[in-house]
Amino acid sequence: MNIEMIRAAQKRLDGHARKTPLLSSPFLDEIAGRRVFFKPECLQHTGSFKYRGARNAVAALDDETRARGVIASSSGNHAQGVALAAREHGVPAVIVMPDDAPQLKIANTRALGAEVVLYDRAAGEDREAISADLAQARGLTLIRPFNEPQVIAGQGTCGLEIAAQAAEHGVLEAEVLVCCGGGGFTAGIALALEAEAPGMRVRPAEPEGFDDVKRSLETGAIQSNAATSGNICDAIITPAPGDITFPILHRLCGPGLTITEGQALAAMFHIFERLKLVAEPGGAAAAAVALFGGDQLESDTVICTISGGNVDPHMFARALVSKGQP
Amino acid sequence: MNIEMIRAAQKRLDGHARKTPLLSSPFLDEIAGRRVFFKPECLQHTGSFKYRGARNAVAALDDETRARGVIASSSGNHAQGVALAAREHGVPAVIVMPDDAPQLKIANTRALGAEVVLYDRAAGEDREAISADLAQARGLTLIRPFNEPQVIAGQGTCGLEIAAQAAEHGVLEAEVLVCCGGGGFTAGIALALEAEAPGMRVRPAEPEGFDDVKRSLETGAIQSNAATSGNICDAIITPAPGDITFPILHRLCGPGLTITEGQALAAMFHIFERLKLVAEPGGAAAAAVALFGGDQLESDTVICTISGGNVDPHMFARALVSKGQP
Repeated sequence: MNIEMIRAAQKRLDGHARKTPLLSSPFLDEIAGRRVFFKPECLQHTGSFKYRGARNAVAALDDETRARGVIASSSGNHAQGVALAAREHGVPAVIVMPDDAPQLKIANTRALGAEVVLYDRAAGEDREAISADLAQARGLTLIRPFNEPQVIAGQGTCGLEIAAQAAEHGVLEAEVLVCCGGGGFTAGIALALEAEAPGMRVRPAEPEGFDDVKRSLETGAIQSNAATSGNICDAIITPAPGDITFPILHRLCGPGLTITEGQALAAMFHIFERLKLVAEPGGAAAAAVALFGGDQLESDTVICTISGGNVDPHMFARALVSKGQP
Repeated sequence: MNIEMIRAAQKRLDGHARKTPLLSSPFLDEIAGRRVFFKPECLQHTGSFKYRGARNAVAALDDETRARGVIASSSGNHAQGVALAAREHGVPAVIVMPDDAPQLKIANTRALGAEVVLYDRAAGEDREAISADLAQARGLTLIRPFNEPQVIAGQGTCGLEIAAQAAEHGVLEAEVLVCCGGGGFTAGIALALEAEAPGMRVRPAEPEGFDDVKRSLETGAIQSNAATSGNICDAIITPAPGDITFPILHRLCGPGLTITEGQALAAMFHIFERLKLVAEPGGAAAAAVALFGGDQLESDTVICTISGGNVDPHMFARALVSKGQP
């Protein structure tokens, strides 16, 4: 993994991924008590940053390999990113999803042209084994959600944009808060900023009780979460950072930051009210730190990723009734 | 009014107004049965396109006049646009608002540094007279919400962006649907497209029963609305088009289009679900035509403005429960 892979990804994504804007609001600055910028990847194709990495990974395959198709295992944003990237390349995509995934996500993934293979999560079927079997049988290439160099490189293009857009505002030093699951987005951004904006420091934001990355950074070794469900920030909950992402995180990022579910919902409200954007709970984690956890921060300026906006109406209604109070 | 005024406005707004993106979603194309692009001015400063015109009008004043301050009469988006533009120039702003305006809008306008003068709408106080008296007494310049050349020129910068961004997608011919109140936004965009994208036709979108512009275009003379309240699309309801905006609309725009309140709420839902954006009811009027009134349209490609996103949580919750069904 190096900056040249991210620069190559940026060329591959040019004209395909959206260059999302860098936004701010004087009202949010006031709540945070400092200058806050937001990088809304909810505006990215498929509603999350995941399209960047998926598109880059699919585009980087050699023609013959790509033509046989790709496979991914995901119940969420990575599934839609891979499905769209495959469709754009005119190649087959198989997405392995739990049969209790939200119907809308299954329907969306199918509508993007992918073949959805359901497995019985409750019966303990092993999705890794299912994916590996299908990949071998059909000659498909597995696109991993975060522990995959070309995926990390694609996510890193968001970091290149942050560096350039912040510089336009005269911002060269800042804490960059990244909504963090397995660390692909965080590692990619950190590598990009190391090269392009070395005055910035990346800090991963996670839900309280699912802070595997924070604890891994503290101990210097990969730590796992006790559970991988039971929190509304589902999009950023993974078992543990990967053996490719963690060394990058350890070298460049931290300390880790945590938020509560109430803070995530309240941040979604403020993002609704002041930025006119739809964030999902996990996508609001970084903003929640900036708005409600400022005592954990040091810089005059912070930049928050809003990593995705794929939230169902019922959950969004919960954010609305929060009125912005965590 | 001419294109040179819009080009001059674009120079004045450079580095101040946001260049909003041009977005699309395959899911929305499918509902509409044609290609649809969206120009989300809800992402503009203060949450609506109004900042463009307000900033341009304030910036175009000579220094001495501007230093005495500006005044506007508005209960909504124009108020916030003028307040922010004045603050950015370091000059006083007085906003005349009805005392039954939403507390949040009054608070926002004050938070943007403006002096808010309340009048008793129920008692029949005349806000025009109040504004005129204050303007004369304090030497303030009145910034009208739409029937004002420099305001129209500022709104027209959105049209320049549409022309350039559509061309990047290879789109030279389209119907451009504009959420239309007094016609400042519509006229500005139409003038810009006449010069930069002559294959495009601007069509104003209004709420059913408040279609003064549609009827004015049909009859060739300014028509009024019977009422100016009683519809959730409050941001785009005005008594009648102006004597500056109407001749431009008559020469370049039409036929007019209308939508129901149910269509506006359903369009807000789809904008939430697929674009991850917050639209106010009036701001979703153009999208409502594209999604639910396609039989009124002729082109393979339409471009919809989303004119603003200043909606209270209670109203947005109504859009969420619509599930996208008009």
